[in-house]
Amino acid sequence: MIDQLIADIRKKQAPIVVGLDPMIRFLPPHIIEEAIKEYGETPNAAAAAILRYNRELIDHIWDLVPAVKPQIAMYEQFGIPGLTAYKQTIEYAKEKGLTVIGDIKRGDIGSTSEAYAAGHLGKVRIGSKSYYGFDEDFATLAPYMGSDSITPFLKVCGEEKKGIFVLVKTSNPSSGEFQDRLIDGRPLYEWVAEKVVEWGNNYMGQSYSYVGAVVGATYPEMGRTLRKLMPKSYILVPGYGAQGGEGADLKHFFHEDGLGAIVNSSRGIIAAWQQEKYASYGALRYAEAARAAVMDMKEDINQALG
Amino acid sequence: MIDQLIADIRKKQAPIVVGLDPMIRFLPPHIIEEAIKEYGETPNAAAAAILRYNRELIDHIWDLVPAVKPQIAMYEQFGIPGLTAYKQTIEYAKEKGLTVIGDIKRGDIGSTSEAYAAGHLGKVRIGSKSYYGFDEDFATLAPYMGSDSITPFLKVCGEEKKGIFVLVKTSNPSSGEFQDRLIDGRPLYEWVAEKVVEWGNNYMGQSYSYVGAVVGATYPEMGRTLRKLMPKSYILVPGYGAQGGEGADLKHFFHEDGLGAIVNSSRGIIAAWQQEKYASYGALRYAEAARAAVMDMKEDINQALG
Repeated sequence: MIDQLIADIRKKQAPIVVGLDPMIRFLPPHIIEEAIKEYGETPNAAAAAILRYNRELIDHIWDLVPAVKPQIAMYEQFGIPGLTAYKQTIEYAKEKGLTVIGDIKRGDIGSTSEAYAAGHLGKVRIGSKSYYGFDEDFATLAPYMGSDSITPFLKVCGEEKKGIFVLVKTSNPSSGEFQDRLIDGRPLYEWVAEKVVEWGNNYMGQSYSYVGAVVGATYPEMGRTLRKLMPKSYILVPGYGAQGGEGADLKHFFHEDGLGAIVNSSRGIIAAWQQEKYASYGALRYAEAARAAVMDMKEDINQALG
Repeated sequence: MIDQLIADIRKKQAPIVVGLDPMIRFLPPHIIEEAIKEYGETPNAAAAAILRYNRELIDHIWDLVPAVKPQIAMYEQFGIPGLTAYKQTIEYAKEKGLTVIGDIKRGDIGSTSEAYAAGHLGKVRIGSKSYYGFDEDFATLAPYMGSDSITPFLKVCGEEKKGIFVLVKTSNPSSGEFQDRLIDGRPLYEWVAEKVVEWGNNYMGQSYSYVGAVVGATYPEMGRTLRKLMPKSYILVPGYGAQGGEGADLKHFFHEDGLGAIVNSSRGIIAAWQQEKYASYGALRYAEAARAAVMDMKEDINQALG
């Protein structure tokens, strides 16, 4: 998948992933109202509204970007119906040729990590048959428990030609509480980055490994260091737009050939219709507003990359 | 819930939580066969088998222990049917008066963390109505992203009188890769422990806070230090039995009054029927084997605590 993702980034000239984090307040009123009319004020209504919202968004952006990143928490909060909408969103995005990065941030050990790997990237066996679970192409993972939480995913990545992005330096304000603390003179996130390199060594695509890293757009100087430390790891960069990262800050995350990173924007795209800049589209044409926001983001980033 | 949990630990004289981590290979053959007969070789069969297995286990242990800890990964791997079995397991355990610790190890930031908190411990709002999602009593959380990933849970814990257990020092072999690294002369896990204390300061039950910690039984010396560092945090101790921890090692995790920790055993209980010691029960009487294993564990721990 990493080779496919890079090929699509080149073809679409867009190192961009759209975060499908459907908070209810991002949804246009007509979608919520119609879902409630059909299902009542129930989790089924929330799930139906989210799925419809996502599909229309995907219909308007699939030709512009290589990938989407659904944030599973936004679905999981609505329980089983919500998780069903998560799975259906993945299926729909893949039908449209998009790579799907499941933002699941799982992290556990041994057989538990194996179960997460099987359920998200791989298959489970039941009697003589095998079934894919959520079947994302990539998953984000948390590193606190060390290699035990990553290696079961590597095995599945090797079998399925899929990939992972490990949290290294996250975009949030409190990311420094632990990640920036110095260990033998270097911040913890650099030690995690070294492990990312090690984990990826035996899982290589054509020029990048199956093991990428998450590094927040809000920390461009750290991005520069981490880009050099992990030369063969793709960097997933959240925090563009709403969280404060700007196009000009992003060049540090890329190699000079314009590859090496993919920048995520969630609410900046999917809730563009709520921004003054795109207000003229109105709630009904929210997906067209999202398309316009993707085009603006593409221009901003490509300009920054020269 | 922390006060309720402690009251039940006292009443049942068992600082024990049974991990409901239903790996398919732990299930007795007759349960798998009958589920496949009814549902075919499908995820629905796996989910039905898991739920039946859990219910029978719960029926045989509910009067002996205060709590169960389902590991969500073991359910999530079977997709939507698996997660439905997770929810049904929680409901059944609560009907039997057990406290439920959802071993979810989630960790994300801002609105995403709010969504996890709402979906697991709290409620989501849909129109004028509110719904509980998975409705565990406690959840385990990963700390790598810092306070941003914990504070949304604190708010919900305050509202719902529920609690969290934050990963501090985990039981697995590679837990030292990051957790043991020294920062200003002290291991990372101690810095996380200090935050656990801080997060819990404003969320207090009668004598313990709503914010507990996970510390592996496999590291008793660290348990001793952490017990002192976090005097008002309950410690959830995994790694007893199968992972190598023994009763005698456990006293360090407790205060002198015998409170302050709850020890988890998963396969040591739920797959007891596969151990030589309990083999005479046979596969059909697996739940009776589990009950015997709980009684032995109780004796082992109470002996260690004097």
